[in-house]
Order: sequence, then C-alpha cells, then structure tokens
Amino acid sequence: MTRLYLHPDRLFPADTGTRDIARRLYNGIKDLPIVSPHGHTDPAWFAYNQPFANPSELLIVPDHYVFRMLYSQGVPLEALGIPTIDGGETEQDPRKIWRCFAGHYHLFRGTPSRLWLDWVFAEVFGLKVRLSSETADLYYDTIDAALATDAFRPRALFERFGIEVIATTESPLDPLDHHRAIRESGWSGRVVTAYRPDPVMDPEHAGFLDNLHRFCEVAREDISTFAGYLRAHENRRAYFREAGATSTDHGHPSAFTADLPRAEIEALYASVLGGLASPSEAELFRGHMLIEMARMSLEDGMVMQIHPGVHRSHNPSVLARFGRDKGADIPILTGYVEALKPLLDRFGNERDLTIILFTLDETSYSRELAPLAGHYPALRLGPPWWFHDSPEGMRRFREQATETAGFYNTVGFNDDTRAFLSIPARHDVARRMDCGFLAKLVAEHRLEEDEAHEVAHALSYSLAKQAYKL
Amino acid sequence: MTRLYLHPDRLFPADTGTRDIARRLYNGIKDLPIVSPHGHTDPAWFAYNQPFANPSELLIVPDHYVFRMLYSQGVPLEALGIPTIDGGETEQDPRKIWRCFAGHYHLFRGTPSRLWLDWVFAEVFGLKVRLSSETADLYYDTIDAALATDAFRPRALFERFGIEVIATTESPLDPLDHHRAIRESGWSGRVVTAYRPDPVMDPEHAGFLDNLHRFCEVAREDISTFAGYLRAHENRRAYFREAGATSTDHGHPSAFTADLPRAEIEALYASVLGGLASPSEAELFRGHMLIEMARMSLEDGMVMQIHPGVHRSHNPSVLARFGRDKGADIPILTGYVEALKPLLDRFGNERDLTIILFTLDETSYSRELAPLAGHYPALRLGPPWWFHDSPEGMRRFREQATETAGFYNTVGFNDDTRAFLSIPARHDVARRMDCGFLAKLVAEHRLEEDEAHEVAHALSYSLAKQAYKL
Amino acid sequence: MTRLYLHPDRLFPADTGTRDIARRLYNGIKDLPIVSPHGHTDPAWFAYNQPFANPSELLIVPDHYVFRMLYSQGVPLEALGIPTIDGGETEQDPRKIWRCFAGHYHLFRGTPSRLWLDWVFAEVFGLKVRLSSETADLYYDTIDAALATDAFRPRALFERFGIEVIATTESPLDPLDHHRAIRESGWSGRVVTAYRPDPVMDPEHAGFLDNLHRFCEVAREDISTFAGYLRAHENRRAYFREAGATSTDHGHPSAFTADLPRAEIEALYASVLGGLASPSEAELFRGHMLIEMARMSLEDGMVMQIHPGVHRSHNPSVLARFGRDKGADIPILTGYVEALKPLLDRFGNERDLTIILFTLDETSYSRELAPLAGHYPALRLGPPWWFHDSPEGMRRFREQATETAGFYNTVGFNDDTRAFLSIPARHDVARRMDCGFLAKLVAEHRLEEDEAHEVAHALSYSLAKQAYKL
Repeated sequence: MTRLYLHPDRLFPADTGTRDIARRLYNGIKDLPIVSPHGHTDPAWFAYNQPFANPSELLIVPDHYVFRMLYSQGVPLEALGIPTIDGGETEQDPRKIWRCFAGHYHLFRGTPSRLWLDWVFAEVFGLKVRLSSETADLYYDTIDAALATDAFRPRALFERFGIEVIATTESPLDPLDHHRAIRESGWSGRVVTAYRPDPVMDPEHAGFLDNLHRFCEVAREDISTFAGYLRAHENRRAYFREAGATSTDHGHPSAFTADLPRAEIEALYASVLGGLASPSEAELFRGHMLIEMARMSLEDGMVMQIHPGVHRSHNPSVLARFGRDKGADIPILTGYVEALKPLLDRFGNERDLTIILFTLDETSYSRELAPLAGHYPALRLGPPWWFHDSPEGMRRFREQATETAGFYNTVGFNDDTRAFLSIPARHDVARRMDCGFLAKLVAEHRLEEDEAHEVAHALSYSLAKQAYKL
Repeated sequence: MTRLYLHPDRLFPADTGTRDIARRLYNGIKDLPIVSPHGHTDPAWFAYNQPFANPSELLIVPDHYVFRMLYSQGVPLEALGIPTIDGGETEQDPRKIWRCFAGHYHLFRGTPSRLWLDWVFAEVFGLKVRLSSETADLYYDTIDAALATDAFRPRALFERFGIEVIATTESPLDPLDHHRAIRESGWSGRVVTAYRPDPVMDPEHAGFLDNLHRFCEVAREDISTFAGYLRAHENRRAYFREAGATSTDHGHPSAFTADLPRAEIEALYASVLGGLASPSEAELFRGHMLIEMARMSLEDGMVMQIHPGVHRSHNPSVLARFGRDKGADIPILTGYVEALKPLLDRFGNERDLTIILFTLDETSYSRELAPLAGHYPALRLGPPWWFHDSPEGMRRFREQATETAGFYNTVGFNDDTRAFLSIPARHDVARRMDCGFLAKLVAEHRLEEDEAHEVAHALSYSLAKQAYKL
Repeated sequence: MTRLYLHPDRLFPADTGTRDIARRLYNGIKDLPIVSPHGHTDPAWFAYNQPFANPSELLIVPDHYVFRMLYSQGVPLEALGIPTIDGGETEQDPRKIWRCFAGHYHLFRGTPSRLWLDWVFAEVFGLKVRLSSETADLYYDTIDAALATDAFRPRALFERFGIEVIATTESPLDPLDHHRAIRESGWSGRVVTAYRPDPVMDPEHAGFLDNLHRFCEVAREDISTFAGYLRAHENRRAYFREAGATSTDHGHPSAFTADLPRAEIEALYASVLGGLASPSEAELFRGHMLIEMARMSLEDGMVMQIHPGVHRSHNPSVLARFGRDKGADIPILTGYVEALKPLLDRFGNERDLTIILFTLDETSYSRELAPLAGHYPALRLGPPWWFHDSPEGMRRFREQATETAGFYNTVGFNDDTRAFLSIPARHDVARRMDCGFLAKLVAEHRLEEDEAHEVAHALSYSLAKQAYKL
C-alpha cells in the first residue's frame, strides 16, 4: 500500500524563491472562512441534518466529474449505480460500485478530481494510504463508519469546514421549504438560495409549459400576459430575497441578449406560451428576458450571473437512459461582444448593477471578457468555471485576464458544486493557485509583496463578499 | 509611505540559472537606441517643443488604458477630466483629477500600465515612494515642477530617451505642417509620418463624405472617378514619403480583402461616393482598397500594416458623450486565412513587398498567423498589440508564433502609443520579456547562448529597422 | 566553427528540482522501442533498401517544414531544387542546394526543425560543429560519404533507431507491392500500412473521378451503385488489413459528419459519380462517408483517425508551379461539437470502436476535444499535430487537455512524418516534453513520482500500442 500524503507546498511553483513567497502569501489567507457564493448543494442536508447514506452515494453517484471519466474508458454507467430513468437495472451494492471506482482511480491522474478526492480522503476521513483496488475495502469501511457518526452529519461538516455562508441554487418553482426549515431550526449556519429561472424562462427547457403552469400557481399571478409573467418573476424574486437570495443565475446556451419593443415581446410571449416558439424564437425570448432580469436586478439589487456556452446533453443515448447532468455536456465557441451589446447598451453603465460573466470558452478571456470587464462598470468576471475549475484553468484565467481587467474586476472563487465534501478542497486549490500566481508576480518584481498580501485576501474572501453582497 | 523601486531583474524568470542568462542577454541590448516604427505621438510636440501642461493632462486625460480602468470600477469619466463633446461639465482641476487617480492606483496591480507608470515616476521624475492617496500631492508637485523645466520639454525627453527614430500616424488629409516644421527647425531628432487612409477609405468612418471632399482638395485630384480617387492616394502617399513616411497603416474591422473586377469596383465606388454604401458594400470597398494599397506599396516601397479586429466604440453612451477612443473598443474573433486570400493571391509571393499583420485575437497566432508568415514571402508578424502589449501577451506571442514562423518573420517591437513618456518603459518591457523568453530556450538547451545574443539584438533593434526600412 | 552539442538535459524544465525529477522519469523510458503508429515514410525504402541519394535529396527537397521557412524569407523554391510540375528549371546541384540551406540555418532558431535536424547531424552523422555557411561543405561531404555506406541504408537505420513497428499511409488505389516485398524479403522489420481513402472519398480531391475508375478496378467491384462503392471500400480495407493495417486515416477540410437516409445518400452518390457535386454536396458526401467508415471500423476492428481543419494549397501560384504539399497548407478554425454529433449519435457509445481525433486548432483542446474524449467511450485524442508537433505545442496540449480528459484518453505520440531520419528525434522530443510535464506535476505535488513513472511509460510506448492495436 502506498502512502497518501497531502504535501503542504502542493500546487505552489517549484522554484524555491517563488515557493517561499507563495507560502508566505498562503499562510496569510489559508484560514479565512469560506464564502461560497454560488453552488449546488442540497439545502435539505442542512435543514434535516441526516447522515449521508454510504461512500458511493456520497462521492460517486452524484458526481458527474467522476463517473464520466470511467464511462469514457468503457465502464457502463450502470456499473456505477447511476439510476436509470425507466427503472432499468443498475448496480445496487454500494461496495461493488466503490470497488469499480477504486480500480479505475489511476484515470484521474493529473485531474482536479484527484486533488479534491485525495483531500477528502486524507483531511475529512483521515486515510493514510492511496486509493486502489487493494485499499478499496479499507476505504469503504473507514468512510462508511465515519458517516454513521454525528461528526460527519452535514451541519457538523459545515462548521468544521469553516463555511461563513453558502448559496444553493433553486428554481422559481421551489417553495424554499428547506431554507425555511434551516432558518426556523435555530441553527447558526448561513445558507441562502439563488434564483435560477431557466425552467420558466427557457422555452426549450424540459417540461417548460408545465413549469409555466406551476409558476403561475406559486407566484399567484395571472401569467397569460407578458406583464403578468414579469410580475410573477418580480414576485418570486422578492420571495427568494426573503430566503436570503442575493443573486440570480442564468444558464443559457449562448450569451445572446435582445431588447425587443413591447409589442414584439408580447407577441413572442404569446407564441412561447402557446408552445409554438421555434428554436430561434426561443433564443430571442431568452435573450430578451436577460434584459428584463437585469432591469429587475437594478431595482431589487440582486447580482446577476450568466453561465453561457454549453451544449447540454450532447449524447442522446445517455440522456434517454439516465437523464440530464450525466457528464455529456460539452462547451461550445461563445461570443460576448455582439451577444451582450443589447444588454450593455441598456445597463452596461449602471454602477449599481453587477453582472458576473462566466465562460467555458477560454479564448474569450483575453479577447473579449477582460476588455469588456475592464470598461463597463456593471460587469465583473466570474472565476474559471466547471472544466476550467482546475489548477491550469485558474492559471490561464489569471494570466489572460489580469493584464487587461486587473484583479478588482474579478469576484473571487466559486466552487459551483454539489459535492459538499470537496468544497474546502476546491477553495484551497483556488487559494493556492492565486498565491502561486501572485508569488510569480512578486518574484519577477511586477508587484510588491505587501500588495500581493492584500490581493490574496481580496481574491480569497472580500471580493466574493462584496460582489455577491454577502 | 512605501518605497518605489524598479528592481534591475524585473520581468526576468525567477529561476536563478535562467535569470542569469536573461541578465546577460539584456545587458547586451539594453542600451540600444529606440526605434519606434509605429505610434501615435503628436508631431506638434517635437515641432514646437512647448512644455507639457500638468501631470493630469500629460498622464491621465489622454490615456485610455488608465481612465477605462477607473471607469470600470465606477469612477465617472467626468471626474477624470475627460472632455465632453457638448462641452458639458467635467473636472477642470488637474490636482483633483490626480488625487482621484492616485486613490485608485491599486486597480492597476498586475497590469502593464502599472509597470509603465512606475517607470515614468521613478526614472523620468525621480520619485522614490509609491503612488497612493497619501503621496498624491507629493507626486503632483514633483511632476508639475519638473514639467516647467527645459529638461522635460519634448525634444529634451526625446534625446534623453535615446530615440533614434519615431513614426507618428497621420490621415491623408493632414497637411503635415508639424513634420515640415520639425525638418525646417534644424533639430536633429528624426520624426517621420505614416499614411493612415481609414478616414478616406472606410465608408463607415465618421465624416467620411466630408473627408472625401477635403481629400480631393489636398490631393488636387478630381476624385469623381475611381481612377481619380486612386491617383489622389498615389499623390498623397508621395507627399507622405517626402515627409519621411516608410509605412501605411490600416485599421479595419476585419482582415477581409477583395479583388474586384474594374467595372465592379467602379460601380461600388460610385455608390460609396454617393453615400449609399450598405455595411456589406462598405466592407467590400475596404477589402478591395487593401489590395490597391498593396499594389501601390509594391510600386512606392511603403511597408503596409494591417491592424484588424476591433469593435470600435462599443458603448454608445460613452461615444455620444465623450467621443471615440475612450476605452470602449473591444476585440472580436478575427480570421485571416480566408480573409487575406484575395490579397495573398495577388501579392503574397512578392519579395519586394512587406505586409505586417497584427491581431487582437491571440487564437490566430499558432493557428493562422504563424503558418501564413512562415510561408508567404510578403508577410511578417507585428508584435503583440494593444491589450496584448504586456508581459504575458508577449510571452504568449513568442511561445505560440516562434515554433512555426521563427524569429525572423517578426518585426521587433512597436510601442503604438500616444503616451510619450512611457515609450522607453514599453520598449524596456519588450526587451526584458524577449530576453527572458530567449533565456528559457537557452536554459532548456533549445538554443545556444551566442545565438540568443544575436536574436536579442535583432528583436530589440535591427528587425524593426529592416522591416520598416528605417 | 562553433561546437554542435546535444545537451543531455535538453527540453527539461530549468528549475533544478524539477529537472532532477524529469531526468529520472526520462531515464526510465528513453530506451523503449519506437512505436510509430501513423506516418508517411515510403515503404519502398524498406522493401528495396537502396541507399539515399545525397544530403539535399534526403533532408531538404522532401521536407516542407524546411523549405517553406526559406521561401518565407525570399528564397525561391527553385533554388532549393523543388521539382516543378512542368519540368521548368530548378537547381540540380545538390551541393548548391545544401549551401543555400546552410546559409539560412539561423532562420530555424526556436523551431522544432532545428531540434530534429541538429539531432540528425549529431547523432546519426556524428557531426561536431554547428551548420553554417562556413561548415556547409564539411556537412555535405560527411553526410554524402555516410549515405554511401551500408550502415546508412534504410533497414540498417530502422534497426539502429530501435523501431518496433512503423505504419505508412497508402491510398486505396495502392497495390501495396512494397509492403508485400517487405514481407516476402524475410527482413524482420515490422512495417504496416494504413488505409487513407481521401482520394476516392473526397469529390474535391485532384483526379477524383479517375481515382474512382481505378478504385473500381483494384477493388474488382462494380461501383456504379452506392452499395457497390461501399463493398469496394470493404474489399480494400480487407486487403489493407492483410498487409498489416490496423488503422484508417481521414484528412477532411472539417470534422463535419452526416448520417443521411439511404435514398438520399444514393442520390448524392449518383451526383458525385457524375462529377456534378457542388462544394456543399462534396462536404455532405465526405461527412456521410465518415459514418460509413466508422461502421466498417466497428465491423473490421480498424482504428479510425480524423485529421481535419486545413486549408490545403492556400497559395495558387505555388500549387500551379510545384504542386501539393509545398508548405502552403494553413490551419483554420475547426469545430467538433456540432460537426461530430451525427457520428457520435450513431457510434459514440461503442466500446469496441476507437476514433482518434486530431486538430490544428488548439482552441479546441480545452473547450471541445477534452470534454468530448472525457465522456464518449469511442473517442481518444491524438497527440499535437503538424505545426503543434513541437515543445510548446506539446506543453499546451498536456496543460489544456489533461485536467479534463486525463492521460488515458490520449494515445501517445505520432511522428506523422516522411522525414525518416528525424523519427527518433521526434519521439525523443515528445518523451522529454512529457517527462518535463510530469516532473512539474510531481514537483508541485499534484502527482506522486511512482505514478509519473507509470504514466511516462504509457505515453511513450503502451498507449500507442493499445490504441492502434499494434
């Protein structure tokens, strides 16, 4: 069995002098509380504080980063216990799932999943040997035993992880019962929601028309007219703000925006409502609604996040058998300059509005996003997202965005995850990479070390609090 | 107050062995004269040698790199004294403008503006403490006092900076009086012009039709026919060459070129002249004219520069209130392979023609520009431009272009600036980054040190002189 | 005369600690046999084992990497002995060609050609001084004398280079006589072919209709119907497999695929057969045929390679005078996500099919290719190709693809060359760069050294054998 060891200098540049600087910067910020302004943890965990079921249900079955890698190498998703839509057979024995995962752990060499998982194994569960087929059962038994104890329930972990505040993400249709339960429980942990209206704003979303009917009910608005539909949004946004929401989130296929005249959007809404919208009309509707969302944000103060540029569910067989979010989402070329112009023409110069832009198309960092954020008061750049939430992805983001946008047009780190146990590991990777980047600037005499300490603090903590108003 | 110190090893790689090599390479070229083959300084400075007005007028108001960053963080352009088009109120007190700038100086951490400005403060004005709100007045008083002395007049600085030759950029409508005044003054400084015909070649340029009328007058040609219009260009190019011009410059939205049959371009010209050109006709006209410019360059020997790929004045509010060049120009995806084909089909194989290509779309370096320049005799690659005139931008350019195009299909450095005082700092950044890049090649045994010395000299001095025929 | 010296640490990172790790990793794999699963050597060399003609015929005239660089700097291709199509004059004296090349050798500073050539000069021919005008004749005489000896015949070099297996690439029209001659000669060297059907699958290929007639003859199938045309492919693929082929190769302008209904493809084939296909029909035909090729691969087990994204013969003057493959091929923007969807919808989930994707558009590594290969079981990523088969190109590939696709969705190295003598140098560059990349991961504590040794072995040897079934 091979040792599992998290080196204290991990992810720092190898050059001795630069590493010394990185270590000093990191020591100044490593114990700051975690601010997690955007993510996908389940509020029910914190509301009811039930123990997690078993190692595989916790760490494999819900993590598309993990199972897509095994799938790409020929492991059937059924062997990993991924539930099928039609209830078709899938592996039920969590220990067998775990062994399958352990036997393929070498596939994660060089990936961020490996860094996060090793951190969880070593820091959360105290494991001292590396995961492999040989150690699979040791791992399973150790983790399974820990999960049965109170110290591994969601609230205990939340506190142990030093989380100051975490945001979940909910549909406008969500009654936010779990968030209410958290507040009413008297527990001190701060868990807020975020307003993600795609299910009622994207005519191509699965179940869109049904969603609209439920939207009508939960918002208690007549949405047969566009004015009523807008009031329903305003109503639900107010409801979300009461549950602590400070942000909205929009996951459109592109960054396209459109500012339609009233008559035109009313006619388009009628078509959308009738289920008659063509793909280009759906795009037009989403594009116009981004501008309505920006208008509402300017009124109610909610920060707006745009996460564009993914071809969702690219694999129809996997979609049909297992559903959405199964590791088959593929990024696409994404333009911002023309796409955002209607939105920016209306609201780009607003100092009281914050629109946070994300991308999966790294070519936009230096060409489009940094120049846009380095000019428009309303714009800020979100951290490297999804596939790019990784050491090299973070390095490229800082190298390509900083010289034009600076540090202060960025907003710190988002973990953006449903993998709760990995949250501290993800923030730690970001803090280490940012300290390494700053250390290089200091070592090359492009920044003084006293300034680097201030920037490290901003990137690790204060920029996220400010940008997200947390 | 914190020390301001320009470290002698700044921008060199941190690894000790590599840094030693970089230092040796840099010592061999750091004192070479500055050849500035393309830029936007004002020839009137050198013609009349008047003192610069005050610190803010010199360093903030004209520098869109600087004020766009403050604007992006919510500082109104009025607070920075940017003149409004309609004469609306703007800050008049240069000391207040300076204090506002100083209070936001942290925004420039990690940006090239910070490197250039610190160099100007330390080297030109002898300041020993860092700029901040606390030191704002000390800075203002020091710089203001210096500017009143003869040693800080334009010609004295030109000589102190070791400038061997500098090119300005003028419209064909410019009478070149300032250049004549320089020549007639007996001063030994070499200041040449460059021919930038966009105002009379781009039907979408502001005031285009008026410009054409003035073009007709200054060229003393009847431009009612396309033949006359071409003669007017030939006439003005000859006039510019007499004022020392060795190059033309073309700032089109794209790199599109077109080679229209005579009847077609004559009909298109008639439409352009009548103010009737559609956007696609305007593109066609610009595209054809690039080929006419190449033809004239082959005849008169002027080097041709193409700077494509910017969405100019992306922010209509800023344009309406403050005009062009206010930090709201955003790069766009820019293709070269199909766009340049008509031009290259005609002139790509000419050994006596030099076309220098620039880009704001770094994705074209390895995919398109290096392969094109590594084949066509007429093509050379310009240095990293504008947003990419930065340490990381330069590193990416060398890393992505060198392996396919080599060093000798590039043309040294362009400062491309109107910020006169920063010119030595900009050349110094380029020299340091190139020496650092070469040092890495030497340290990794990909190039011998004697060869690296030769390449460093070429990149710092001789390639610019040769490519621009200076 | 300057020393020529191949430093044993060349291409390793300069940082001492990282370099020590790289050296250890490299020592573990440097003597592994060469597996060359895709390339363009001439099987006649190995069949008949004739001596190579002279230094220029061997190293300059056939190498478009070399002569395009001199051409880009104004050297006529005629001066380098490139044969003209019409038999027009071209330099015949190989010594003069060599001197011209030697006098321009500085142009290759910083390029991979320089690394490969220096390796050939030092390791293959034992030269101790650097190539220059001064040493041109010494080089010519040394190499020319060596080539006359038995030790420098193709088979002797093949054995000396430690080649375990090499694949050539042939058209379906090729009778594979040379491969038969190799097998029948009793020589132990393993040389296999690969099936490259572009000449009979791309309606825009030069001589396409003539090729179809010959295809009909060699396959002994009536190809007047689409069914017959498919049978002809199946027939020739079987013939190629008998000559050792384990792979096919497809060099289309784009990665476009299409899955047409039977009636539609039959009608399209009739149009293609009649020479009537428009450019978009040609694209449609190529796109459909990729899916047919994948189907056949699933049946016959041949690995499928797709090399898209080049504008071939961009320079019409060079094409007309010298023909194809003369250094005028330029990469273009290449999308994979939509383009491959029809193919992946059909066969992406097949575990028994391997499709290896290549690109000249590096922007697709992190945005498209790594996410696709990190999901679909049928997909693997080929190594950096052509312009990107270089130290920096390899570094970018590993940095941009590994975090999402891991190492095990890649397939080791391809030399992809017709420059036989450079093959060991090319594999050595790849092995050194991969060890340097792994050493950095180890030095930054992102991977343990025992794992890095395993990965280095996989990247240098076993992944290529497995992926290509060699």
